[in-house]
Amino acid sequence: LVLFLSVLSFDILQAQGIHNDSTENKPPWHINYGSKGFELRSNNNAYLLRIQGRLQFRFATPNDSDPVTFNDFGYDNTPAFKINRARLKVGGHAYQPWLKYYWEYELGRSNLLDFRIMVERWKWFNVKIGQWKVEFTRERRISSGSQQMVDRSILNRAFTVDRQQGVEIYGRLDGASIADFNYWAGVFTGTGRGTQENDDKNLMYFGRLQWNVTGENLGFKSSDLSLHKTPEAIIALSAVTNRSSFTRFSSSGGGYLQGFENGEPGQYRINQMNLETAFVYSGFSWQSELHKKEIIDKQKNSTTTLKGFYLQAGYLAHQSIKWWPEPLEIAVRYSNYRPNTGLNTTLEEASLAMNWFFKGHRNKLSMEVSQFDIQTSDYQTADELRFRVQWDLSF
Amino acid sequence: LVLFLSVLSFDILQAQGIHNDSTENKPPWHINYGSKGFELRSNNNAYLLRIQGRLQFRFATPNDSDPVTFNDFGYDNTPAFKINRARLKVGGHAYQPWLKYYWEYELGRSNLLDFRIMVERWKWFNVKIGQWKVEFTRERRISSGSQQMVDRSILNRAFTVDRQQGVEIYGRLDGASIADFNYWAGVFTGTGRGTQENDDKNLMYFGRLQWNVTGENLGFKSSDLSLHKTPEAIIALSAVTNRSSFTRFSSSGGGYLQGFENGEPGQYRINQMNLETAFVYSGFSWQSELHKKEIIDKQKNSTTTLKGFYLQAGYLAHQSIKWWPEPLEIAVRYSNYRPNTGLNTTLEEASLAMNWFFKGHRNKLSMEVSQFDIQTSDYQTADELRFRVQWDLSF
Amino acid sequence: LVLFLSVLSFDILQAQGIHNDSTENKPPWHINYGSKGFELRSNNNAYLLRIQGRLQFRFATPNDSDPVTFNDFGYDNTPAFKINRARLKVGGHAYQPWLKYYWEYELGRSNLLDFRIMVERWKWFNVKIGQWKVEFTRERRISSGSQQMVDRSILNRAFTVDRQQGVEIYGRLDGASIADFNYWAGVFTGTGRGTQENDDKNLMYFGRLQWNVTGENLGFKSSDLSLHKTPEAIIALSAVTNRSSFTRFSSSGGGYLQGFENGEPGQYRINQMNLETAFVYSGFSWQSELHKKEIIDKQKNSTTTLKGFYLQAGYLAHQSIKWWPEPLEIAVRYSNYRPNTGLNTTLEEASLAMNWFFKGHRNKLSMEVSQFDIQTSDYQTADELRFRVQWDLSF
Repeated sequence: LVLFLSVLSFDILQAQGIHNDSTENKPPWHINYGSKGFELRSNNNAYLLRIQGRLQFRFATPNDSDPVTFNDFGYDNTPAFKINRARLKVGGHAYQPWLKYYWEYELGRSNLLDFRIMVERWKWFNVKIGQWKVEFTRERRISSGSQQMVDRSILNRAFTVDRQQGVEIYGRLDGASIADFNYWAGVFTGTGRGTQENDDKNLMYFGRLQWNVTGENLGFKSSDLSLHKTPEAIIALSAVTNRSSFTRFSSSGGGYLQGFENGEPGQYRINQMNLETAFVYSGFSWQSELHKKEIIDKQKNSTTTLKGFYLQAGYLAHQSIKWWPEPLEIAVRYSNYRPNTGLNTTLEEASLAMNWFFKGHRNKLSMEVSQFDIQTSDYQTADELRFRVQWDLSF
Repeated sequence: LVLFLSVLSFDILQAQGIHNDSTENKPPWHINYGSKGFELRSNNNAYLLRIQGRLQFRFATPNDSDPVTFNDFGYDNTPAFKINRARLKVGGHAYQPWLKYYWEYELGRSNLLDFRIMVERWKWFNVKIGQWKVEFTRERRISSGSQQMVDRSILNRAFTVDRQQGVEIYGRLDGASIADFNYWAGVFTGTGRGTQENDDKNLMYFGRLQWNVTGENLGFKSSDLSLHKTPEAIIALSAVTNRSSFTRFSSSGGGYLQGFENGEPGQYRINQMNLETAFVYSGFSWQSELHKKEIIDKQKNSTTTLKGFYLQAGYLAHQSIKWWPEPLEIAVRYSNYRPNTGLNTTLEEASLAMNWFFKGHRNKLSMEVSQFDIQTSDYQTADELRFRVQWDLSF
Repeated sequence: LVLFLSVLSFDILQAQGIHNDSTENKPPWHINYGSKGFELRSNNNAYLLRIQGRLQFRFATPNDSDPVTFNDFGYDNTPAFKINRARLKVGGHAYQPWLKYYWEYELGRSNLLDFRIMVERWKWFNVKIGQWKVEFTRERRISSGSQQMVDRSILNRAFTVDRQQGVEIYGRLDGASIADFNYWAGVFTGTGRGTQENDDKNLMYFGRLQWNVTGENLGFKSSDLSLHKTPEAIIALSAVTNRSSFTRFSSSGGGYLQGFENGEPGQYRINQMNLETAFVYSGFSWQSELHKKEIIDKQKNSTTTLKGFYLQAGYLAHQSIKWWPEPLEIAVRYSNYRPNTGLNTTLEEASLAMNWFFKGHRNKLSMEVSQFDIQTSDYQTADELRFRVQWDLSF
């Protein structure tokens, strides 16, 4: 709440400046088609409107979803061809170049995903208010249209905090090249996408500190399409704590992990940590996450610990192999997830993907083969092979 | 129905004129950002497209909703931070400057709110067809983004007829300055927002006569942001009658007041009256409504009468106080609602609000404190204090 | 699947061409209002964005829906006034003039109707991927805003395959004027609009061959608004086969015909044929469809056959009658539907419509009178008269 009020007072300080602005003299507008779609920009850059659509087509066999339990392996056999995502994205700024807005609507499911206002006046201190993907995990934060694999790893279901409603401050502090940091600190209702009220008085608190080791903020992108001339790396540590009725979050809002169903308001205290790395150089890209999640059931007085990590790398191999086609990237990922460290159950995923970038991430064809393995607590094992093709087009 | 057919014949009269129009010669277009958002206007003004988004963020404690019954006082304690409204507004005209269209979509709840066509060829006779907020009560008709307080009064739940589907004629008759009137007369299905069929053959009939006392139609606006140099006032009398299964209406469509649940088709005949005033001068603004509503239950053969009124005033005090900040308005409201005049139950609301207009109603920060009091029919009393902060941004 | 992969390889062949394209030099854009709404087009025509809204208002008495069974005749009496359709249509092309996209959203029901990408590089070979109205029946394929009558015939409910998700190739083969054909061949999941997974491994296969008798592809349009100077005709034969849990499809997705409820996955094999004709000349237009549909219930081992046809004609009579108003069309339709050829039940519809084209199909007022007749298998008969008025406006 203090944070919330600080936002307000910040705005009030800016108020008279804004109020006295004149928007009456209106020179010609610029129309453009850029990386974020169609643009209308006023000549003085006080106003910007961007409109972009995105369609993602997917074919998957034997089925599309990641297996979660032993019983999911091998039995479900319904090949999917579907429009997996159909998005309308509208963003820009109004009144001032630093007063930004953005909203994103999923047309297929009629869900409002993002809606946020960003006051980005200084590099080192910005404020965001609304609903968006919390910057807790790299793979979730990267847009589904800009992924290196067809979709996120098996870790995502258990560890993402997904979209939340709240307020956040963030910025970049770059001192000497060695002391270059990005920070994020936010307060959220902690009840997930699309909720209107908090379940109790407990909020979600989130922080992330990212060290830009070599002096460049890599942002939330995958694949080194810009072919970095120098090696660039970041290391980030994130933490989040929340008390609510939910044990996981997704685009559908709050939900439940296997074994933690139908929570009462405030039943679950969740504490999570994530250590993240990313690296790019000359067409090669690397990223990893290492997760720990603690679920404290306040009614049963029990604590469960979840752990997991993934390692992912991709290469635009034409950088070193002459005959390799320029638009083709090869990428691999290994994920390891333990749903309960007190038991021996382990899920593994190993994936190989090929991306053909017709026009960067905006027009991309991906093929992916994944091998899933499970070892249950009573030493049973099972595996499954999955093949997916995906076309992602922004326009 | 007669009304409906008169609309049709009117259009047919206009038909050949429209048909012969040429849209082939197409001079350059004007792009603009105006009070209704981004605009594309053809040089001959035959075509206009406007796109505007609006986000409303709200924090409320101890909770956001107005108390309705004795039991609502003091027990519910779930502070809300939420995106209260997320709107997409598209309007303009096509083929002719007087053939206007408008639709508004609530992105958060995926509801189509307004969709209407307006034939506004003459000042004194216009036709509207579609779905919109009936012009019955001033506070409901004023856009949620242009309110003087954080939201509408405790009267709104019981007395608004909200959005309806139908046909309406309206216009302004200004004779001598003293005989200056606006009128509205409409026929609606009377089943609320989003319905596809009438429940029975009974329709809703609505009329409003507004006397522009000083010769200016103040419109449905609040706060005197244009700092009127002369005092301006209006007085309006509205009436509406409807027979349906519902006893109240809201953005969610037809609903029920406490004690009138689950109506059969045509069970309730509702008769309503509203006497409205508004006044502005030099940064000061006033408005009031005085309501009477009769619910006749055709099955139980019983009649219930509801009464209520509110008084509301605001002042941009920099007009008389030197040190007062220019963008700051102070506003107060007192509301009094009796859900059944046969009993002694009375609900009261007294609110104090401060608005900081960064950019008029399009970028506005509001803080509000409200005191609610209830006296039940058996002379029990309860009260509650509520605090709300709201940021409303159009872009 | 082979088809699907052929699409992919096709795209890969085009890839390097696309990739090397430069979109950096950006000359002025053209803004326009055309037959598909507002347009933004880049000077080199690499990018096009179109936005169009459409509202359709309808009044119907004694009610709006077509009677289906004997009991529907005469008993339901709820006159409807409603916004029948409220559409947002966005289309254009991106990166290349031949890489087209289109999506259409129903705002009133919050449904994503169309979303498709079309690769239309050559006249004789095009590829479409996504969700759209399969080109199986003429009357369904024609946009609801461009119909000659107020709505489709009584055949539509039983025989349309409506919107499906899948992949299709199509094109035009025009040899000598006599050997001028259009073809369509598609594979779909066969589970209707908005589904995410197939119910089983059986797909829907569709083909259509259209002979452009006189050398012009008439397209999916009704009414001869362009006043053809020479007579033009097409004949088309379509066939579709599908196995799923459904026996009919509509905008709401998969559904059931009377007597075929609650299917299991893969319970029904459906085989359908349609022989279609269309003809236009000097303001006169003709179209017809002749349908046969076979429903094979794999669980009950029973087969049901449905048959039906309609004949429809319209005339802009000012072409031969001097005093006839130019924007006025008169149109008639006769439909005959037998839900089960093993029984004697027959439904008939005879309709007379008048269309006033303010601005072609984009601003059109229609009035229609329909007579429905039913003869049941035990020789009972019933009839019903219906009157409808509709205003359809695109902007």
